[in-house]
Amino acid sequence: MVNSICFLGPIGSFSHQAATMITGEKELIPKGTITDVFNSINDKECHEGLVPIENSLEGPVNETLDNLFYKNLFINLEIEVPINLVLASKNDKFNIVYSHPHAIQECRDYIVRKSLDKVIPVESTSRAAELASVDPNAAAICSEMAARIYNLRILDRNIEDNVNITRFFLISRKETKEGNKSSLIFTVPHTSGSLYHVLGKFYEEKINLSMIYSRPLKSIPWRYYFYVEYEGNKNERLLEKLREVTTSLSFKGSYSKFLNNNSGF
Amino acid sequence: MVNSICFLGPIGSFSHQAATMITGEKELIPKGTITDVFNSINDKECHEGLVPIENSLEGPVNETLDNLFYKNLFINLEIEVPINLVLASKNDKFNIVYSHPHAIQECRDYIVRKSLDKVIPVESTSRAAELASVDPNAAAICSEMAARIYNLRILDRNIEDNVNITRFFLISRKETKEGNKSSLIFTVPHTSGSLYHVLGKFYEEKINLSMIYSRPLKSIPWRYYFYVEYEGNKNERLLEKLREVTTSLSFKGSYSKFLNNNSGF
Repeated sequence: MVNSICFLGPIGSFSHQAATMITGEKELIPKGTITDVFNSINDKECHEGLVPIENSLEGPVNETLDNLFYKNLFINLEIEVPINLVLASKNDKFNIVYSHPHAIQECRDYIVRKSLDKVIPVESTSRAAELASVDPNAAAICSEMAARIYNLRILDRNIEDNVNITRFFLISRKETKEGNKSSLIFTVPHTSGSLYHVLGKFYEEKINLSMIYSRPLKSIPWRYYFYVEYEGNKNERLLEKLREVTTSLSFKGSYSKFLNNNSGF
Repeated sequence: MVNSICFLGPIGSFSHQAATMITGEKELIPKGTITDVFNSINDKECHEGLVPIENSLEGPVNETLDNLFYKNLFINLEIEVPINLVLASKNDKFNIVYSHPHAIQECRDYIVRKSLDKVIPVESTSRAAELASVDPNAAAICSEMAARIYNLRILDRNIEDNVNITRFFLISRKETKEGNKSSLIFTVPHTSGSLYHVLGKFYEEKINLSMIYSRPLKSIPWRYYFYVEYEGNKNERLLEKLREVTTSLSFKGSYSKFLNNNSGF
């Protein structure tokens, strides 16, 4: 293990694209699921992992939130990647288009405008690119990176209907305590006003919350844990105040946003 | 349209099961997606619709929340359905098992214990039952209702690993103002403590929140709307107070839980 990063695969996925943005000399290892990425870090197979946390249209990535809740790992860096999709193929002429159901959804206007009527859903946009690379009658809706990996010609760029950004996290076993933002996960007592009292502690300390998501506790139906991101570093005084009004509290790391001149890849 | 209910299909789905629990003489119409159910009510093709809102393990059903946010429809009734899965087939001997990926996930321990090693994911548990009805070498992991519809023999019941309950909503164009619970959707100003101030109004009025979920506003990245359920009827004083601290506010109906003696179906 020489400073390796595992990511949510396959090769050519948007997680792969995010990993290459920060990678330097590190070894990149694709994994089949988000949970596999977390397990690889826990088991010390990998040093760090790259997983999606939230999409600007679809919302949170539940598998990432649940792994952050159940595992003692930390967020070290945030990377925003615009989800730009391309239409790509071996030939100019094709009669089938492969893509992932989400990508098909996101290009619905384009598909109607271009009268692409035979659109086949497959398990990933990378798989779509792979299929188009071996079928001369097929095209793929995929990332520019996947099109390049499978030697496809790009026929059209930015074919998605809306601005669509995914945030990724670089995670590891190392707790980082400084950055523009920090993440916490907590549960609250089953009493009236419990979440209100927790948010009151942030307000007292003049700390801005940038996001709050709730997720079910799998052990008890209709009970929840909360994931929040706030502006600023790890703050011991805030944590001490929050301990008074929560039933469990985990600090999940402070981190800044990775800046890249060519974020469009 | 004689009092028809549309539901998230296909025939034999858990939404179908929930619909049959309350149906009486009403006509039941399967729809391909949750959005299709909402559109059918909006377009007055159907009187009412039956959609899943939340699962005790997986969390909220985003497509339902987003449709509640974007469309002027109301919740009239809540139905809880335990997600009990069965193993069913035409014959005692089989070498393939079909099911939906979520159902496979939920029966992972059972699959290992019974050494079912050839498990094939398909698009729904109903489709799995249909496949098992025409292939004498196949079994399905599906609902008991789907097994009955496709004339399969039930080999094992309650094969899921964990308690797993899905809540469904009956929705319509009619606003109902009384029930054990009510739902609201709101957005807050982009200022410090804005959600805290909203929750404060519930606390002042001694109204218990039973759930809060946030979802992205598709129009502006990293801004959110909030969906909450609270205990009690429509409350005009609460709504008036909330209007002072929200940027938009929609009342989505008051409703009670449908009670059924044989909730296991």
